[in-house]
Amino acid sequence: MNLKVREELKAKKQAYVQEEILTAAATLFAETGIRAVTIDDIAKSLGYTKSVVYYYFKNKNQVLWEIFQRIHEAWWQDMVAIIETDLPADELLGAMIRKHALNVMGRAAWTAIYFRDQGELTDDQQKIIVKRKREYDQLFKNAYVKGVEAGIFRDIPTYLIVSSIIGMCNFTHAWFKPKGQLSPNDIANHYVEIILNGCKA
Amino acid sequence: MNLKVREELKAKKQAYVQEEILTAAATLFAETGIRAVTIDDIAKSLGYTKSVVYYYFKNKNQVLWEIFQRIHEAWWQDMVAIIETDLPADELLGAMIRKHALNVMGRAAWTAIYFRDQGELTDDQQKIIVKRKREYDQLFKNAYVKGVEAGIFRDIPTYLIVSSIIGMCNFTHAWFKPKGQLSPNDIANHYVEIILNGCKA
Repeated sequence: MNLKVREELKAKKQAYVQEEILTAAATLFAETGIRAVTIDDIAKSLGYTKSVVYYYFKNKNQVLWEIFQRIHEAWWQDMVAIIETDLPADELLGAMIRKHALNVMGRAAWTAIYFRDQGELTDDQQKIIVKRKREYDQLFKNAYVKGVEAGIFRDIPTYLIVSSIIGMCNFTHAWFKPKGQLSPNDIANHYVEIILNGCKA
Repeated sequence: MNLKVREELKAKKQAYVQEEILTAAATLFAETGIRAVTIDDIAKSLGYTKSVVYYYFKNKNQVLWEIFQRIHEAWWQDMVAIIETDLPADELLGAMIRKHALNVMGRAAWTAIYFRDQGELTDDQQKIIVKRKREYDQLFKNAYVKGVEAGIFRDIPTYLIVSSIIGMCNFTHAWFKPKGQLSPNDIANHYVEIILNGCKA
């Protein structure tokens, strides 16, 4: 095995372990609250010693911060990809709602943390997340305004629309089960229909 | 002052202090997570010694349990009062959504705990709350089914409707400010309109 291949394998393994640690941490954080969880708890839940976790993360705050960063980045990229398709306003907003709902159902624990535990970050981190959440919300507001201007949607304060969409979709994290009666797609489509009909001009 | 008056005054004072303790506890629980809060923290936030809190509550669990009981009881009574008016299905569901939204905005910290921290109760307490939440949800489901049967609402799985309403309304606890742009009533009315239009047959 040459050096390059070996280094690639090492990087892959490290990325895998990092993701594994974050996922385990997110589950514990969501279940018992961040303050009650130690680096040792995270390590133990994976059968590791805590030195493994410390190899990847300086401390619990860095674990939490990485969870916030990754979830924001993934959601942001998904939305930007949808917006670039340049759909008419109702289809655009519909596609954004669907994707947000699917993202929430795909990562319930991460979502719970992202919307609940911002106060556990440092002041500087909180400022960044508040800004990013505002930018994310703005994407939905823009889509809605586009629909109001096109005469498709009623003229309602856009922050109420965004809050309705986010609130509705996020609450699935409290009850959604992957093997439930309806598929994530079915659920997402019902939400799209309720909001689009609910806002129709 | 005769004995009866004195006892009445004492009972009034005790009810007041109890409510004061619960409100302070709910705020601390919602802000920092239940596990991080001690009886001493609750007492200090009111300028009391912890013996005052222990006079009214055996331990932290009893404080938390009382918060769950009181919020459920208040919400339940409000909904039953609306249902007894025997309105047509759309007005009924509208009135229920409006009241739920107003109750959430009126007690943001309590709501956050009621929907987030059930896992901190004992197993027996959790069973009771799960049952009560199901009964509360059922009131909304009944109103919706009444509307489907009357040809007013589309036939959508009722748990999605309930989850939409609860999710949408509860998310206000994350951003609603009493002195914000819109009044609680304005916000609640927008939610009613989105859901009623969104579900129209």
